[in-house]
Amino acid sequence: MSSFLELAQKFNNFYLNNIKQEKCYAFIVNGFQVGLVQESIISELSRYPNIFIINNKNIVLNPIFKNYEERSTQVEKVLRDMKEKRLFVTLKGWRDECYEVRLMFGDQPQLKMDRSATCLFGICNYGVDINGFVKHPTKGLCIWLQQRSFTKQTWPGKWNNMVAGGLSVGNSVLETAYKEGEEEASLSSDLLKNLKSTGTVSFFYESERGLFPDTEFVFDLELPIDFIPFNRDNEVEKFELLTIDETITKLLSSDFKTTSCPVVLDFLVRHAIITPENEKSFPELVELLHVPLQLFYSKKDIELTKSG
Amino acid sequence: MSSFLELAQKFNNFYLNNIKQEKCYAFIVNGFQVGLVQESIISELSRYPNIFIINNKNIVLNPIFKNYEERSTQVEKVLRDMKEKRLFVTLKGWRDECYEVRLMFGDQPQLKMDRSATCLFGICNYGVDINGFVKHPTKGLCIWLQQRSFTKQTWPGKWNNMVAGGLSVGNSVLETAYKEGEEEASLSSDLLKNLKSTGTVSFFYESERGLFPDTEFVFDLELPIDFIPFNRDNEVEKFELLTIDETITKLLSSDFKTTSCPVVLDFLVRHAIITPENEKSFPELVELLHVPLQLFYSKKDIELTKSG
Repeated sequence: MSSFLELAQKFNNFYLNNIKQEKCYAFIVNGFQVGLVQESIISELSRYPNIFIINNKNIVLNPIFKNYEERSTQVEKVLRDMKEKRLFVTLKGWRDECYEVRLMFGDQPQLKMDRSATCLFGICNYGVDINGFVKHPTKGLCIWLQQRSFTKQTWPGKWNNMVAGGLSVGNSVLETAYKEGEEEASLSSDLLKNLKSTGTVSFFYESERGLFPDTEFVFDLELPIDFIPFNRDNEVEKFELLTIDETITKLLSSDFKTTSCPVVLDFLVRHAIITPENEKSFPELVELLHVPLQLFYSKKDIELTKSG
Repeated sequence: MSSFLELAQKFNNFYLNNIKQEKCYAFIVNGFQVGLVQESIISELSRYPNIFIINNKNIVLNPIFKNYEERSTQVEKVLRDMKEKRLFVTLKGWRDECYEVRLMFGDQPQLKMDRSATCLFGICNYGVDINGFVKHPTKGLCIWLQQRSFTKQTWPGKWNNMVAGGLSVGNSVLETAYKEGEEEASLSSDLLKNLKSTGTVSFFYESERGLFPDTEFVFDLELPIDFIPFNRDNEVEKFELLTIDETITKLLSSDFKTTSCPVVLDFLVRHAIITPENEKSFPELVELLHVPLQLFYSKKDIELTKSG
């Protein structure tokens, strides 16, 4: 099998595992399935029967909570309690930064949840990535990559796209790109004016921490040859400008953050580095960079009365 | 709902219709599911019991045909017979041009089939598209589109990408791009040298003629401002250079070939015309341009002995 395809299967290890999917419970809020919960977590959630109602293969947020604020507060209480009881390793990394919980990206959010907890409920995460690249006179197309700080809670010391950040409550996609571009790589607003939206990648990964259905909004940014990214928020160990060959070597090594690979692969596809002529599984690879997460939950029939 | 999303649902009318999918029979060749057959066609195929074996919800090509040539010859005989009996409107347009039939694009073909017949068996079609564009000094980004000839058997007079053609037996993706570029638009090899592979789009459409699971290999080609495409194979009525606004108006009108829309939408996404800021359903739209056709058949369990 092609190494790129193998990588795409790795960051879609949950998407491609029907058996595991079938064992999960649907997480239902206000009549919408907004997530998936693994069987192993159900017994912990069942200790909060006033908050979560378990009903066949559904875990339903109690419909007496009528609105966004009430739902967010009640769920946060449970999560903080679980954190104190050290039930889940992911909650050790409490972020004090929330993600919106909703059926599809364009929909009204039903509640917000600390980003460390969303993987327990299989909530769709959204993020923003900037591919910083240079057209080098002698080395050809080169890509800026960052090594994550060794003090980060998740994926310490692993390699990543030049700029990557989660879309937290209250920020639009473009605002997040600007904010992360400034904080992570000191991109000036003059440079950021050239940001080019190029699409999304979507994939569904599972780790020991939980489930990660993830959609990344992707931007390309061509940089002047003399620009050197400089980190301001202590989240980055260092930046390096790599040739295409060096990028591919790093991408296929265990030094790369698994869930950052789709953005790099998408860049290599769009820039004619990976092509139908050199990649036998080209159509399969492109599909695995865009799996239908927005349909993943909405396709299932939900026979529940809405509370709203 | 967004007009672009509505369009993406239109060319995925089969992908999004679970009920219709469940009524179909799996088309099995040499132990692999290579297609889907609608219930309405089964009774016609059952008239050839030496060729097609109907078994629960499977329609199996008789495993006594041991190789590619034998399978291709036997199926062609049936198709020519059905054509003479005028059983299916699509066979009126017999092309004398074959598509390969296989599980996934990188796999060994199991047989070949005239392209007019593949929609009866829900065989994955592959094609090549060239987005010809110009960076106009006053009008900005402009796109060359073609109007199909009024004498074409399918979609006569409808608007289409500048260059589009099916991947028929014996041609690679790049060879097809060159061949179609020369025949359809008189692109010189000097211009074609600038072809840039940018990925694929995939979608699953159904019309009155049959089922169309389709993967298009997409190329961008920036053209000099003084180049004017000229058709040589009588398949084109005319070419027009359109601004982005004019392109969008045409794309959303009934004058556009439905199954050519995904390539234009993908171009508009990659070139930052459709963005997360102006399209509420951006993630859903991008996903519907890349539905997982390569997994569509292979995910199903097939408990059949291979013949080969």
